[in-house]
Amino acid sequence: MNFRMIGRIISFILIVEAAFMLPAMLLCAFGGQTGSASAFLISVGIILTAACGLWLLSRNAKKGFYARDGLVCVGFSWIVMSLFGALPFVISGEIPHYIDALFEIASGFSTTGASILTDVEAMSKGMLLWRSTSHWLGGMGVLVFLLALVPISGRSDGYTMHLLRAESPGPDVGKLVPRMKQTATILYGLYILLTVLDFIFLIIGGMPVFDAVCIAIGTAGTGGFGVLNSSIGGYSPYIQVVCTVFMFLFGVNFTCYYLLFCGKIKNVLKDEELRWYLGTAFVAITAITVTLLVAKTYSTFGETLRHSAFQVGSLLSSTGFATTDFDLWPSFAKAILFALMFIGASAGSTGGGFKIGRGLLIMKILRRNVRQVLYPNKVQAVRMNGRVVDENVLRNTNAYLCAYVIILLVSFLIVSIDGFSTTTNLTAVVSCFNNMGPGLEGIGPTLNYSGYGVASKIVLIIDMLAGRLEIFPILVLMSRSAWKRR
Amino acid sequence: MNFRMIGRIISFILIVEAAFMLPAMLLCAFGGQTGSASAFLISVGIILTAACGLWLLSRNAKKGFYARDGLVCVGFSWIVMSLFGALPFVISGEIPHYIDALFEIASGFSTTGASILTDVEAMSKGMLLWRSTSHWLGGMGVLVFLLALVPISGRSDGYTMHLLRAESPGPDVGKLVPRMKQTATILYGLYILLTVLDFIFLIIGGMPVFDAVCIAIGTAGTGGFGVLNSSIGGYSPYIQVVCTVFMFLFGVNFTCYYLLFCGKIKNVLKDEELRWYLGTAFVAITAITVTLLVAKTYSTFGETLRHSAFQVGSLLSSTGFATTDFDLWPSFAKAILFALMFIGASAGSTGGGFKIGRGLLIMKILRRNVRQVLYPNKVQAVRMNGRVVDENVLRNTNAYLCAYVIILLVSFLIVSIDGFSTTTNLTAVVSCFNNMGPGLEGIGPTLNYSGYGVASKIVLIIDMLAGRLEIFPILVLMSRSAWKRR
Repeated sequence: MNFRMIGRIISFILIVEAAFMLPAMLLCAFGGQTGSASAFLISVGIILTAACGLWLLSRNAKKGFYARDGLVCVGFSWIVMSLFGALPFVISGEIPHYIDALFEIASGFSTTGASILTDVEAMSKGMLLWRSTSHWLGGMGVLVFLLALVPISGRSDGYTMHLLRAESPGPDVGKLVPRMKQTATILYGLYILLTVLDFIFLIIGGMPVFDAVCIAIGTAGTGGFGVLNSSIGGYSPYIQVVCTVFMFLFGVNFTCYYLLFCGKIKNVLKDEELRWYLGTAFVAITAITVTLLVAKTYSTFGETLRHSAFQVGSLLSSTGFATTDFDLWPSFAKAILFALMFIGASAGSTGGGFKIGRGLLIMKILRRNVRQVLYPNKVQAVRMNGRVVDENVLRNTNAYLCAYVIILLVSFLIVSIDGFSTTTNLTAVVSCFNNMGPGLEGIGPTLNYSGYGVASKIVLIIDMLAGRLEIFPILVLMSRSAWKRR
Repeated sequence: MNFRMIGRIISFILIVEAAFMLPAMLLCAFGGQTGSASAFLISVGIILTAACGLWLLSRNAKKGFYARDGLVCVGFSWIVMSLFGALPFVISGEIPHYIDALFEIASGFSTTGASILTDVEAMSKGMLLWRSTSHWLGGMGVLVFLLALVPISGRSDGYTMHLLRAESPGPDVGKLVPRMKQTATILYGLYILLTVLDFIFLIIGGMPVFDAVCIAIGTAGTGGFGVLNSSIGGYSPYIQVVCTVFMFLFGVNFTCYYLLFCGKIKNVLKDEELRWYLGTAFVAITAITVTLLVAKTYSTFGETLRHSAFQVGSLLSSTGFATTDFDLWPSFAKAILFALMFIGASAGSTGGGFKIGRGLLIMKILRRNVRQVLYPNKVQAVRMNGRVVDENVLRNTNAYLCAYVIILLVSFLIVSIDGFSTTTNLTAVVSCFNNMGPGLEGIGPTLNYSGYGVASKIVLIIDMLAGRLEIFPILVLMSRSAWKRR
């Protein structure tokens, strides 16, 4: 393992983290909240000290950097980032317990949006901005950010490739352009562009600037932290529609936007994952709207459609905003939302969940297997967008499903110790692991995770990070074989 | 597809089914329940007529019989068997609606034990015996029975192999002895021996003969239909302990018994699946006992241990008997039971569920994948009991998990239309698909499935059969490629 190189990268990441704390600190300072401002200042000081120490310890790094180094580096980075990112909450006393603060910021970086706060509006504006900033940074990935902007060393693409692969969501991370550094820059460019567009549309709707910034960056990272106790429910229908549209947009594979940008509209229209993503959204919205209309949950068709589309967009993209207490909806509508929690957004988007693309591969693997049983002598290939999918990708997809099921089951067992209802525990685990935010019953959209004990919170923190990093970087950290000397 | 051969086999199966109705018919006739007796007589008449018709239609069968024929044959057989098996209930009027009767008998054959009856004790003894008989026949498999006893034709082993493989549970069906026919005979021999032993132990405990017969054959098939409304709760602690022991015994791979029989005790002790099966049982019983003791659910340690061991045995072996309303247990205890519903018994046993052996393979596949990511240049094999597992078996295990997750999700969505709670719907689907019987909340051990609508019942019937046949025979029936002419 190339520990020195990993240490060097993490020291860079800490500097990026400190830099991203500055806007929140300035907001506190200019808003007269000196307590919060100094909490940020102290945190930045601690983080920079740690970064310097790590930098000094990790001089003279070796040259080799393999896939395992990439995975370990990404896994450690996110854990370290969360451990330090929790500091401002604790130092300012706004979230007195460290585990709660860690839960909140891990939920932020992993773009989950699950909160332990019972009263969001009681927080200082700086802390709310820091929460939402963590969504934005976590959405596209802090290592991708590093690759896009900072020349750590003049190394080959292999090195950046391993990092990008380990941090980006999806079964098959492709290069947009031959050079990884450029790919990262293009991704962040598109990300910033879409975020700014979202902000502008929110401002046009008369949203206060602070709210618009937080909601725009929270939507961009498909996070879900809001600034009001009612999430998005208190804003105008126009703003809710804007949020719905952008949640859907941030759940799309960014490669599609790049192709659009290059004028390759045909390729985008033919993209199988995009079609399934839109198809799933359409079916879910229709089914929920009909169910709500039959149950007469809302008075008008327009209101029904708006709430239905918002919640589908929120859970399909794994954002987790809410405009209404969907825990009061009829069972069938809730079952659809529960299913959406599993599915999640597209690969290569900022969204979480199992990913539409991976789900598609799973279905294709199954179909191939049935055919192979039927006609054992015929070689069958799995195709996606017309191209044969590499067997390695299929194997990884299968392994992903295995890990997914095992982690969900084990987490569910541990979390159940706290005595909440089966549905609460199950949706808590599914929601955190898939980076959604809210669940059903005891953690419904109007409630929060504050009732869980320390052990459960730690399990959920691991789940959130493992979910965001797509399991393997965290799994590798826990695997014996990674630490054996060979 | 060799339809004539399939038709011929199904005609044999119908004759077996009619033969197994005779004990119930005689019980009714000698018990003076002439209405029920004539219902059985009419059913036997209809079934034999159908068998004769099918036999005449399927003369001059071709020689070739491939894996796909085996799958289609098994899938069709079980559906036909259920469709005809429901007749006595409907004709006697004891279960007036056909779908309810079909649910009951599909639940019987698939050894699920989920019931739509609100008052079991109101049924005639003959009908109760028929319900339990279906468990016994379904447990080891009707085609295996056919192979063991009836020489359909002097064909090669390849043909019996395909049928046995398609009907037997587990990721890897091995031959006990070189000839499949002998393997089937040995399996049924052990099955009968264990059933008789169970019966004797129950009789020693003072159980009425009728009850002992029904409970013994219901336990043997790991079914779960009882003859009292309180399931096993009303019997003495001794009988509950006997049931516990035999439920565990019937959840063990029958190969282990054969090896014991041959004196190869060492091989049995080294069997990985058996170790994990016993280990899981031990951990689950301990954890539940401690939880119940802390919550002071029962007054004494003995009572706590007895109920805990019984329920673990019942769900781990997928039987579904109950001695207490475990839906009232603390969340953690219920979570463990819920997890056990997923895991299920050993491969090659009469039990249902995902199977311990398959779960083990899933964990090994995951471990291999992590290692392959870490050390891409090293070839890694998956081993079970010291031997390398064939890649085909691994592929099928992966495909099984894919199908498992997809079917659970789709079934859950459809069943949710009826408006029960999320936990009810989820456990209903999990319980039926894994051939358990009871679930939590609305379908807890003291309740039943009568509240579900027709659509949900049909979905659950398909789930029960698909679960018992381990998905592929049912999946193949639904697959387009199976019906294409090539």
